[in-house]
Amino acid sequence: MTDLQPTIKQFLKDSRGHLTVQEHLEEVERLLAKQRLVESVVHRQAERDARRPALVETLVHRQNLGELQRKLDTLHPADVAYILEGLPLEDRLVIWGLVKADRDGEILLEVSDAVRETLLADMDKREIMEAVENLDADEIADLAQDLPQEVVQDIIEAQDVEEQAQLRSALSSEEGTVGALMDFELVTIREDVTCEVALRYLRRFEELPNHTDALFVVDRDNHLKGTLPLKRLLVSDVDIEISTLYDRDVASFTPEDDADLAAQAFERYDLICAPVANRAGKLIGRITIDAVLDYVREKQEATDLAKVGLREEEDMFSGAWDSAKNRAPWLALNLCTAFVASRVVGAFEGSIEKLAALAALMPIVAGIGGNSGNQVTALIVRSLALGQASAATARRMLMKELGIATINGVIWGGVLGITAFLLYQNVALGGVMALAMLLNLIVAALAGLLIPITMDRFGRDPALGSSVFLTFITDSMGFFIFLGLATVFLV
Amino acid sequence: MTDLQPTIKQFLKDSRGHLTVQEHLEEVERLLAKQRLVESVVHRQAERDARRPALVETLVHRQNLGELQRKLDTLHPADVAYILEGLPLEDRLVIWGLVKADRDGEILLEVSDAVRETLLADMDKREIMEAVENLDADEIADLAQDLPQEVVQDIIEAQDVEEQAQLRSALSSEEGTVGALMDFELVTIREDVTCEVALRYLRRFEELPNHTDALFVVDRDNHLKGTLPLKRLLVSDVDIEISTLYDRDVASFTPEDDADLAAQAFERYDLICAPVANRAGKLIGRITIDAVLDYVREKQEATDLAKVGLREEEDMFSGAWDSAKNRAPWLALNLCTAFVASRVVGAFEGSIEKLAALAALMPIVAGIGGNSGNQVTALIVRSLALGQASAATARRMLMKELGIATINGVIWGGVLGITAFLLYQNVALGGVMALAMLLNLIVAALAGLLIPITMDRFGRDPALGSSVFLTFITDSMGFFIFLGLATVFLV
Repeated sequence: MTDLQPTIKQFLKDSRGHLTVQEHLEEVERLLAKQRLVESVVHRQAERDARRPALVETLVHRQNLGELQRKLDTLHPADVAYILEGLPLEDRLVIWGLVKADRDGEILLEVSDAVRETLLADMDKREIMEAVENLDADEIADLAQDLPQEVVQDIIEAQDVEEQAQLRSALSSEEGTVGALMDFELVTIREDVTCEVALRYLRRFEELPNHTDALFVVDRDNHLKGTLPLKRLLVSDVDIEISTLYDRDVASFTPEDDADLAAQAFERYDLICAPVANRAGKLIGRITIDAVLDYVREKQEATDLAKVGLREEEDMFSGAWDSAKNRAPWLALNLCTAFVASRVVGAFEGSIEKLAALAALMPIVAGIGGNSGNQVTALIVRSLALGQASAATARRMLMKELGIATINGVIWGGVLGITAFLLYQNVALGGVMALAMLLNLIVAALAGLLIPITMDRFGRDPALGSSVFLTFITDSMGFFIFLGLATVFLV
Repeated sequence: MTDLQPTIKQFLKDSRGHLTVQEHLEEVERLLAKQRLVESVVHRQAERDARRPALVETLVHRQNLGELQRKLDTLHPADVAYILEGLPLEDRLVIWGLVKADRDGEILLEVSDAVRETLLADMDKREIMEAVENLDADEIADLAQDLPQEVVQDIIEAQDVEEQAQLRSALSSEEGTVGALMDFELVTIREDVTCEVALRYLRRFEELPNHTDALFVVDRDNHLKGTLPLKRLLVSDVDIEISTLYDRDVASFTPEDDADLAAQAFERYDLICAPVANRAGKLIGRITIDAVLDYVREKQEATDLAKVGLREEEDMFSGAWDSAKNRAPWLALNLCTAFVASRVVGAFEGSIEKLAALAALMPIVAGIGGNSGNQVTALIVRSLALGQASAATARRMLMKELGIATINGVIWGGVLGITAFLLYQNVALGGVMALAMLLNLIVAALAGLLIPITMDRFGRDPALGSSVFLTFITDSMGFFIFLGLATVFLV
């Protein structure tokens, strides 16, 4: 932990009004700007007098880079990653060049996928090999998907036999499984020794792996028997045998387990670290809270972006054309649904010609339906995520949502009906407006409930895409109900 | 940890095809249904023969409740909480009555706010006092906001002096600060002792607090000097003095620190537990990863709900009327914005009467603007949350987004313009459609970028409410641009 401390302290000074990670970024930007200024002077100097080397300026330039480098050396890899993400490509590569080679690997692990691509594109094979040298097998596996296949092959061959096996195991794990999150830093012990022996054994380590809060108890064939929490070892009499002390009935995972399930278990039962065993019960790795936390946060971010149809994180500084391509499929999908809704309106053009007020009022009916349906969807998506939406509760929720839609439909439909009447002095128009609102809110409640449930039934993530379908239905049906009623009763 | 283990094991059996927490809920539901059946038989029996006590049925009834109770006793408090949340009020209170009194407190801590209210409403003062008896000061403070003021007063008075002080401190902490998340379970040590003394001291504890991964080193006045990681204590020679071993430069917080800042520090630097000291540097508590994780998850859930205008979590089984009230303000707000957009259309009713096709096409222009703007907002909100959106990057992003909007506007505007021409055989209409799309996408890019930045500048959370404003602008402007252009060039 020692090497993290200066940064952490600076990070935390924020609340007391000092340096934050944002301010680190700003300071680096200032130093970069200064350097660019110097560079332009050097450049002009060189143009003016091609023979005289711009000694002074070059010196200033070097000093400046030195200052930048010293600054970077004090920062935690996570903070350097933050700065790299916050800089445009050109500046980013200047900074990347100043980072000490032995820190490259750790920093690559911390940056976002989009930024990692730009950094790796700037490195040759030798630099990449050096960067991953200090990394563990599980960390190398995290980077591997962004590396050229032949570099991965060379990296594998550069490892010793044990690490090769670990790396192959990590590489073959599917994303979203425990295998993809686990590491291999195990401290194991046999059950037939005393606490004293265990304590003596631990003192032979130079240091224990991060997040070690328990020792894994195994038999002679490395089968997982249980875990011994360090805090129990510490309060126990030194003569007691481990066998009387350790937990036999422990939370353990297999590499094939769903990472979401593991995350749920870590959150529910406040775990720090849990063993991973293969199907035969042999201990092969462990999963720690920090890996779980990173997984949860990354998944949340991906979901937030996917909700508005962004397939992957965009580098803030990448080109407009790349970004346009990233956003195109979503716009195309929405264009299709909007087009269908537009054709519903098109079917009633005759009525609209006779009463143009219909065109002004119809977006309200459609829009409020969408808002109301999205509320229902947000609640049901949450229940589905928690696994609390059984068939019985779904029926109950349906009745409740229909009740709410009726209450809202009467109230807001009434308000809108009166408003429409006052605007156009047309009682029938007011009545049609009120009735259309009520009916479309009922449609919205049904769609808001049934779309996510159906998606979930078919194994799709209801948090994604529900909203497009919902808006499609509340728009189309809103137009249809309102214009249909108007055609029957008004025109 | 021992008492958690049976549940955890069952929870984890999921991946191997066995009992999950969802299945616990289903089993409880089955047992409840069985019990209701028995009750109805007892009831009919009693009606038929008022004198003969329905002995057998009562016996079955009791057996059944016993089975339920045994089931509940094996479950982790978090799992009982899950089951309580998944049951309608009547069943929920049956289960709540079966839970052992000494577990009430822990379970109350785990359930959602909406469900906690229903459980507390079912308890009298004595039961509440008993429930909180086993809780720590920080846990009692978490419950206090849902308790009647006079009960809180009595609870405070029932504590010993030290706990009273802790409770008062926790109660006076503002929500969203470190003070509201911290607990008081400290294990401290002086720096002038050897590892051997420290180890002997620890063995005098019956058990160490959960998530203890380090000892807090303090001086004689309880000033925080640093921390000694347990894993370092364990690998060190017993004769070494603590003073040569501990980290002096540690991440520590004050109770007034922003909880989000603490969460960021825990995530960035993979912390498990950090000391909390007051402004004078005296150690007063600690903050642990599980409290941070709960805070982050609850905040995320609240944000997800607030995005669709739900101010608080709804109990799945609460009444339709309560829920309608919870959702009303959002609908009212959206009604107002939809009304303004509707008046924009109203201003062009004359044009629409002459060319009803305008009414059919205008929702497409407005809708795609909204979709496109929401993509921009999602990206900028993320940058703002990370603190990476400085003035310089904002300018850069603006240029980029305008570029993307132009690319998309030309492509999708072209597609739509041609479609409109094909549908209505009107070249000018196609041209107006294409131009309106392009212009509204540019409006959407500007609004999608500027609205969240402005909200952030004024200290509002840009993740909430940005979308309403945005849709308001893309709708109104979409209608205005399209109908305005049409009025100039077509009618």
